[in-house]
Amino acid sequence: MSFDRDKLRWNGWGRSAESMELSQARSEAVLTALSQRFGRPLTRGPMAVPIEAVSLPDTRLTPEARAALVAVLGEASVRVDAKSRAQHAAGKSFPDLLRIRGGKLERAPDAVLYPENVTAVAAALRVAQAEGLAVVPFGGGTSVVGGVEPLLPEGKRAVVALDTTRLDKLLALDTVSRTATFEAGIDGPSLESILSAHGYTLGHFPQSFEHSTLGGWIAARSSGQQSDGYGGIETMLVSARLLTPRGELKTIGVPRHAAGPDLKEAILGSEGTLGVIVEATLRIREKPAVQDIRGMMFRDFAAGVSAIRALMDAELPMTMMRLSDAQETDLSLLLKRDPARSFDPTATFLNATRALGYGDRRSVMLFGIEGNDRRTVSAQMLKAQAIGMRQGGLPLGKGPGNSWKKERFKTPYLRDFLLDEGVAIDTMETAFCWRDLARGHEHVVEALRSATLTHAGAGLSMGHVSHSYPDGACVYFIVLYPLAQEDRVAQWQAIKSAGMDAIVACGGTVSHHHGVGIDHAAWLAAEKGELGMASIRALKATLDPDGMMNPGKLV
Amino acid sequence: MSFDRDKLRWNGWGRSAESMELSQARSEAVLTALSQRFGRPLTRGPMAVPIEAVSLPDTRLTPEARAALVAVLGEASVRVDAKSRAQHAAGKSFPDLLRIRGGKLERAPDAVLYPENVTAVAAALRVAQAEGLAVVPFGGGTSVVGGVEPLLPEGKRAVVALDTTRLDKLLALDTVSRTATFEAGIDGPSLESILSAHGYTLGHFPQSFEHSTLGGWIAARSSGQQSDGYGGIETMLVSARLLTPRGELKTIGVPRHAAGPDLKEAILGSEGTLGVIVEATLRIREKPAVQDIRGMMFRDFAAGVSAIRALMDAELPMTMMRLSDAQETDLSLLLKRDPARSFDPTATFLNATRALGYGDRRSVMLFGIEGNDRRTVSAQMLKAQAIGMRQGGLPLGKGPGNSWKKERFKTPYLRDFLLDEGVAIDTMETAFCWRDLARGHEHVVEALRSATLTHAGAGLSMGHVSHSYPDGACVYFIVLYPLAQEDRVAQWQAIKSAGMDAIVACGGTVSHHHGVGIDHAAWLAAEKGELGMASIRALKATLDPDGMMNPGKLV
Repeated sequence: MSFDRDKLRWNGWGRSAESMELSQARSEAVLTALSQRFGRPLTRGPMAVPIEAVSLPDTRLTPEARAALVAVLGEASVRVDAKSRAQHAAGKSFPDLLRIRGGKLERAPDAVLYPENVTAVAAALRVAQAEGLAVVPFGGGTSVVGGVEPLLPEGKRAVVALDTTRLDKLLALDTVSRTATFEAGIDGPSLESILSAHGYTLGHFPQSFEHSTLGGWIAARSSGQQSDGYGGIETMLVSARLLTPRGELKTIGVPRHAAGPDLKEAILGSEGTLGVIVEATLRIREKPAVQDIRGMMFRDFAAGVSAIRALMDAELPMTMMRLSDAQETDLSLLLKRDPARSFDPTATFLNATRALGYGDRRSVMLFGIEGNDRRTVSAQMLKAQAIGMRQGGLPLGKGPGNSWKKERFKTPYLRDFLLDEGVAIDTMETAFCWRDLARGHEHVVEALRSATLTHAGAGLSMGHVSHSYPDGACVYFIVLYPLAQEDRVAQWQAIKSAGMDAIVACGGTVSHHHGVGIDHAAWLAAEKGELGMASIRALKATLDPDGMMNPGKLV
Repeated sequence: MSFDRDKLRWNGWGRSAESMELSQARSEAVLTALSQRFGRPLTRGPMAVPIEAVSLPDTRLTPEARAALVAVLGEASVRVDAKSRAQHAAGKSFPDLLRIRGGKLERAPDAVLYPENVTAVAAALRVAQAEGLAVVPFGGGTSVVGGVEPLLPEGKRAVVALDTTRLDKLLALDTVSRTATFEAGIDGPSLESILSAHGYTLGHFPQSFEHSTLGGWIAARSSGQQSDGYGGIETMLVSARLLTPRGELKTIGVPRHAAGPDLKEAILGSEGTLGVIVEATLRIREKPAVQDIRGMMFRDFAAGVSAIRALMDAELPMTMMRLSDAQETDLSLLLKRDPARSFDPTATFLNATRALGYGDRRSVMLFGIEGNDRRTVSAQMLKAQAIGMRQGGLPLGKGPGNSWKKERFKTPYLRDFLLDEGVAIDTMETAFCWRDLARGHEHVVEALRSATLTHAGAGLSMGHVSHSYPDGACVYFIVLYPLAQEDRVAQWQAIKSAGMDAIVACGGTVSHHHGVGIDHAAWLAAEKGELGMASIRALKATLDPDGMMNPGKLV
């Protein structure tokens, strides 16, 4: 098994050995700047307790149920120790972190199962059903919407986490059709490393890539950082195999069909509520030899949006276009500044360009093109730059791209660092059609800012366009505020709700790529409508009639 | 209302005023050649009876039900006359034609409703439910899989066709998001002409384009002739509005979401069994100024398939790649030959190229590129030709493309002409992943040929690649055979079944773009699996609990 959960932070983001890697001087500079912007000194937050100090409720798994699970999975694959349970007690949402850092877990799975193959998953589901257990499929556990909370529904005796990470094999590589079939518990780096050895890539790089699994990507309808070129997980998915309490649902492996509704789409976004995704066949691509990512600065966000539209119209093979608004550009520049250096070239550059109109509303875009031929990519990149420049863009060269590549999976570590320092940082994302985007961006940023003032006395809010489509784009919002001294979850909920209300009011979806989980469930009915919710519930009732799969999520 | 059903053949394909337009000499040459290939003289089939001579079963619509429908729709919109009923008695499948040409319609809707707007559709559904009527949503009526048969299920008193073609308005044109919202009864030419006036196109051109509707395209998961460039209807659909017996299901108008399963995909392919699709928002594109379509001849089908793969790898903006196998190439050339001309340049060309290896296995491909800039398109076309030539392709220039453009919607008329002459011609299509494609193509063609020998004493079968994807392609099969003197539906069913069995055995889908209807229903469970079928039935039970919508189709 390549996935090693012991190397991951159980109560924070990512690998225990990794962090944002800010120097002492840079850390202090960031905190000073945030304090200035909040207009108040920061109060260090409560430290996270070590895993040994965690208090867990007693397991509700009966000896009989445990024996039945052990009979099909083996002793070592049915764990009730505190560490295993704590590691599977939550995902990585902001309220998850608030709860779990305190060390007093009111919720934890009563056991953790580690089936080693598909047969074992099916056996585990049968025992769970017979023993009245709820089952939470658990891959990387990186859900940021409460998608893996171990909720015990009425009528169930206990809840178990079903850890899928031992299902990590390549089952078939079809180089003719250019597809690969994997067990769905495989994590991002393992999957890419197997494909890479054969000269292929999936091209799916969500920010959780290093610690999330294929099954999780499908279950949450994930979308990666290069989705402008590679599409979301739904574009890559050819077919999937779902083990439900009623048996197996396997979709056909053809490129397209008109054989009634596409059942793949019932598995995509099912969030573990219908069963366990155990296998998937994916479209793969030849790994590109050249990746060119550059930065460009616009006078304002709107000019950057125009550039994105123009780049799409030019049908250039963009793999990413990531446009920060003025506030996010400002925060990014702040994180880059190193007070230990006597000469700050960034500050000099910003001062010089201010005279050219790139002032406080300046917005930086990262844009990338991939290909096999260096000259073709260079030519396309030149064309892309020229298009951006026609919208007033100032080329920033490859520096910002290289820096992004280095830090692309690092940013979430910032959250833990800031939490230690008493600063809350949370994100939410939506998709708007282009016509709604400018107004939507403005309203949501304003709603978040206003909510931080009400509920935290101060705060910053910002956003960026992260994934673009012919008819619209994803806008990803970030909010920072001073953490309350108590009722921190309520404080978060109030601010989160303000953001979500604004998103829905402006025509956005409750989620572009994070999923619904428990955090967005309250807004889902507004999006799906009464009959839409009834349809999703009917599907659930058909495949999981006892309501044992990931209870409390989605529906 | 732009759609005029009176101008369409009620018992054959398309417009009454149009046909294949073969000269007498060419017709005779085609029939002689077919007779030679069948190894027997052709016996003219039974002529189609005129609509006045049609005998229909009495309407089962009670005066009370009729009065209730008239009360909400108006007198003129509730029709029980023979012509209206005959026009809505069948689609355009081969068994439909066999039945309907005889003039004795054992099945016909008991009434035809013509709601003029969405409110009227909702009212009609309410009355139908109250009066125990089954409802068949009827757009263009071009289903080739029995998708609009007026079947009366147990427990229902009568069945009505709900003609959607008065729902033909443009509701919104969002030039910022580049989307258009239409009422779903609009037909292809009306939709394109409205978009064209604003400089846009949808780019959806199924062979039924001239007589089919937007709602039908969505209901059947249609795919057009330029889907290599524009995608299938699912690629174009942003959101849809479905009126069900339980109320309205409307999906959100965003470019992408991760808010649980995508309910658009429950509407796509629903084939009228869940409700009436009344509105849809579609991604539109700027109408390209240049369309360049050319022909290329390969030594065999496999070389052509290699060329398609190479063109896809080159990421050229192909809008179509249509590769005929040797038998279809042969038939196409036969249809092109004009015996009235003393010099046949095609024959001369074929003789000359035979020496270069383009013999009996030669396979012709049509391939197209579109764009706004003539020079760019020319350069791309040159590159495409060079790629094809590396697979042994012989460029045939623009002639074949021009000829295809002229006849692209004409080919189905051939069926009526041949039926008159006692020759059956039917089509079926599937999608295979690339690895299965060569074997699948070969097996299905052979299964069809063998079935024609058994059930018709002679026959021809052939296929072409019509829509390509990174991981596979659609193969479209054509079968011709001498029509039996009696039990013609049974003869067709035996041959059709042999083809479908072979498709399923080789890993293909029961339909790439025609849909399921009644003709493919027997094979659907093999593709969807037990739980898949249960899921589709659960959706149906939720949205149409009384089973009143298009009974007998799909599930």
